[in-house]
Amino acid sequence: MGKRVAVVLSGCGVYDGAEIHESVITLLHLDRHGVAYQCMAPDIMQAHVVNHLSGEVAANEKRNVLVESARIARGHIIDIANANPADYDAVILPGGFGVAKNLSDFAFKGAECSVQAGVQVFVQAMHKAGKPVGLVCIAPALSALLVGPGVRCTIGHDAETAAAINRMGAVHVECPVNEACVDEDNKLVTTPAYMLAGRIHEAYDGIGRLVDRVLAMV
Amino acid sequence: MGKRVAVVLSGCGVYDGAEIHESVITLLHLDRHGVAYQCMAPDIMQAHVVNHLSGEVAANEKRNVLVESARIARGHIIDIANANPADYDAVILPGGFGVAKNLSDFAFKGAECSVQAGVQVFVQAMHKAGKPVGLVCIAPALSALLVGPGVRCTIGHDAETAAAINRMGAVHVECPVNEACVDEDNKLVTTPAYMLAGRIHEAYDGIGRLVDRVLAMV
Repeated sequence: MGKRVAVVLSGCGVYDGAEIHESVITLLHLDRHGVAYQCMAPDIMQAHVVNHLSGEVAANEKRNVLVESARIARGHIIDIANANPADYDAVILPGGFGVAKNLSDFAFKGAECSVQAGVQVFVQAMHKAGKPVGLVCIAPALSALLVGPGVRCTIGHDAETAAAINRMGAVHVECPVNEACVDEDNKLVTTPAYMLAGRIHEAYDGIGRLVDRVLAMV
Repeated sequence: MGKRVAVVLSGCGVYDGAEIHESVITLLHLDRHGVAYQCMAPDIMQAHVVNHLSGEVAANEKRNVLVESARIARGHIIDIANANPADYDAVILPGGFGVAKNLSDFAFKGAECSVQAGVQVFVQAMHKAGKPVGLVCIAPALSALLVGPGVRCTIGHDAETAAAINRMGAVHVECPVNEACVDEDNKLVTTPAYMLAGRIHEAYDGIGRLVDRVLAMV
């Protein structure tokens, strides 16, 4: 049987959900490897809705993380609360502010944040079962919570975010945009993507490396 | 000076807007070629909002095509009504139902449809200036209206859509998912993408061919 990877989405749009380019690029690389993927997201309301044209919060709008994530997944998505870790060989979280606003409250509480319960349970179960975890862009901010203290990860070289990551118990490592940081012992792979990328192909190259390294550890 | 391509979006999500994978893949191929792109969309309300999890119309929701398209463009987008055809070397329309519901009313009126005024003016001006036009997925349904009667195009091999295209005055040609149909005389390039694709890399390959052929005609 072929490999099967869980992809955890956090909405649909860089400022209030999953970063769309990173999400699509992740699916593209998995499919290129002939690996099946299953998109999943928590069935919760978004922290807020951001108008991506103006950059302002749309105060009267409410959107659901699972329903909006379904846009990226072309409708083929499941509630992460119903996902069985035994069904998957690895898990990858693309970035976007949705990771820091919906899948956790890192955007609001920094190092004192916690992870949404369904995401925490699923990803931690994957890690404890010895399966590789891939975190893209801002998602490595959750490394210590999802994988455990002492784990090595990267978000590129943003000093403030790196300091928060270290305060949470992980070890931040600088990494260029076209590379991935690998903690072999903890089976964690991270890449900066749009934390550093100025152009879409830079995110493509870095996420390509991340997918390669994740699949190599399955 | 490098080439610059206009990418016309129609929202954000296959069932009521631009097909997200096709849009991102178009940007990816353009960037790989070192070509600058400018996303644009009309500043109009969507025909409707579809819940991509349930597939049902969300009757009480209203969304704007330009604002939602901005999600795919990471905020870097302009109103097509303000776009100057002289600034671009080519134009590409990714697919998705948004092309047939927002950029035109093809989904509701079939062969009797018309194109949204701002899109019609911009794309027709590009064509009349001898610049290549690329249409992806369902967008080739608008070939006769945007480029003129007699133009050759493809949406793959869906008989009903092909018949509507022929009734509108274009000439439908069958084409596999990993290829593009080129009308050299009219500088129109089309590819089926998710009209046929079962997997994301098939859309990637076909759109890659389309971008290659569009850029070769600049």
